[in-house]
Amino acid sequence: MKPHSFEIVDWQDNAVVLLDQRLLPNEEKYLRLTTLEQVAEAIKNLTVRGAPAIGVTAAMGVALGVLKGENIESVCQTLFKTRPTAVNLSWALDKMKDVAKKNDTQNPDEFKKTLIAAAIKIKNDDIQTNKEIGKHGQKVLQDGDTILTHCNAGALATAGYGTALGVIYAAIESGKKVKVICDETRPVLQGSRLSAWELKKNGVPVTVITDNMAASLMKAGDIQKVIVGADRIAANGDTANKIGTYSVAINAKYHGIPFYVAAPFSTIDVKTKSGRDIVIEERAENEVVLFNGKRTAPEGVAVRNPAFDVTPHDLITAIITEKSVFTSPFEEKLLVHDVK
Amino acid sequence: MKPHSFEIVDWQDNAVVLLDQRLLPNEEKYLRLTTLEQVAEAIKNLTVRGAPAIGVTAAMGVALGVLKGENIESVCQTLFKTRPTAVNLSWALDKMKDVAKKNDTQNPDEFKKTLIAAAIKIKNDDIQTNKEIGKHGQKVLQDGDTILTHCNAGALATAGYGTALGVIYAAIESGKKVKVICDETRPVLQGSRLSAWELKKNGVPVTVITDNMAASLMKAGDIQKVIVGADRIAANGDTANKIGTYSVAINAKYHGIPFYVAAPFSTIDVKTKSGRDIVIEERAENEVVLFNGKRTAPEGVAVRNPAFDVTPHDLITAIITEKSVFTSPFEEKLLVHDVK
Repeated sequence: MKPHSFEIVDWQDNAVVLLDQRLLPNEEKYLRLTTLEQVAEAIKNLTVRGAPAIGVTAAMGVALGVLKGENIESVCQTLFKTRPTAVNLSWALDKMKDVAKKNDTQNPDEFKKTLIAAAIKIKNDDIQTNKEIGKHGQKVLQDGDTILTHCNAGALATAGYGTALGVIYAAIESGKKVKVICDETRPVLQGSRLSAWELKKNGVPVTVITDNMAASLMKAGDIQKVIVGADRIAANGDTANKIGTYSVAINAKYHGIPFYVAAPFSTIDVKTKSGRDIVIEERAENEVVLFNGKRTAPEGVAVRNPAFDVTPHDLITAIITEKSVFTSPFEEKLLVHDVK
Repeated sequence: MKPHSFEIVDWQDNAVVLLDQRLLPNEEKYLRLTTLEQVAEAIKNLTVRGAPAIGVTAAMGVALGVLKGENIESVCQTLFKTRPTAVNLSWALDKMKDVAKKNDTQNPDEFKKTLIAAAIKIKNDDIQTNKEIGKHGQKVLQDGDTILTHCNAGALATAGYGTALGVIYAAIESGKKVKVICDETRPVLQGSRLSAWELKKNGVPVTVITDNMAASLMKAGDIQKVIVGADRIAANGDTANKIGTYSVAINAKYHGIPFYVAAPFSTIDVKTKSGRDIVIEERAENEVVLFNGKRTAPEGVAVRNPAFDVTPHDLITAIITEKSVFTSPFEEKLLVHDVK
């Protein structure tokens, strides 16, 4: 078993190369993006998804935009508007703006090279961060565990290795035998399409269920732990993640099953005091009621499609980061680490 | 607003006529079944679904089999094997066997007519029962309520009017303005395909969500009541219903939202002491990982597909039947009513 880092986002010959995750699990196709607009569109239309992967892609988008002669401020504004919930997006844009500011005396060619190098470093740092998350997090897993995960917080959601799935890979690398159950994760099916795909590719035993089956399996004793990723973590530990995470957390609490969030420290937004302050993106109705061009509900009915929900900190057993595994009360610890 | 009883199952000119619910919401097509095998297959392949509708269809299947010269015992055995969880199926078969026993001195032609009349009476009684369920149940709803429902326990699941949706229709007929939110109900999408279709047809304001969004909407105060149907109710009130019902019940409890089960008394199986004794049907993997012929998960992954789950009685606020609205503790009351 050798889990590897898929190259889902890369900088190649002055272009951003992205694995088109919309086509998985049926097709493995890479897109070569040569304009800022293409990168912004790819983030919007879910060619790339997952908070850390969006951050890396956005950083490369900044480098690409500036390379093509655009102003860094307007480039960052274009990219910032693509997805409102992922804090890694604004984190990566701020990082690129910092680099730009520190190097604004460079000549234009040097300046462009500096930004490209900075974007590539964000990618490599992300993989390293995930390996650290895995190193800390694998301690909460035991040999023989079956772990439920929701959505995809794996190699496909990051620059590589993954956060929630990285913890699982790290457990396996340390010699533990674990199995994974993937919620399919409606409406976009990131669990069945993406997590099941990368886990199978890495040789991890994987079972797919519909989201509404998890409670039954918990009751039957088929699930020992839950691990999910995060799109934004507030200072008090409240966690925004893919829609359905909150329901999984309630079910886990009801059955006495530990519920873990695994995420890089950059996902923690100390300026956001609690989950109440997190804006939830509502996406297009067709994600819910159209499948392969066929309607799953009659025309004319109303549809809701919040892309995320917020899991309150009291349903979270621990938050696993590259710095350490934080148990509640979160607020003080998260803030202290952030100040360091 | 005049909710009507869809003719989803009917006896016409020595044939069983069924609305093919697999084609909804895209197409409204009726099948004419002239052999026992066709009826058994229609129950198995979900042309007709919903515990009471299965019962009525099976009763008509008995009449059809006997009409074609088959032995009633073997006819009942064939039909009994089609779906293991729905208690109404065996209830309807027992009813038909009783009628046969009481009339076994009739000449063959009379005997066949008696069985046909008995099957039609089971259908008409079911509609009448549902109206009584609605009459009792509508009292738990208030003007302005938004009600979450899971799967389809409506006119499409019964001989007409419906159980859970019948309660909603009755509330509207009594002058209350209510709205409905339908869980899409993976994997077979009975909520978005069927409940949304019949509610819209009846002019009821309806919103479709994926199953994993319900908790978020509960937290936001968008849901005041939950009403679902039942496939089998044990003597202690534990209720088997469509997969995902259990998760909705846990979420409702967590948010302090009343959770109601609406079902005909024939769904209560006093011989089943508790939910532990209910056998849960596992259906084909392809229901979960194939959609319109396209895979939603990679080949070779394991899949679970339990069709039902069991909601323990302590998560159920009340069980609404044609006799009355029962609140917990259920056991004594349900048994007493059954003895009457």
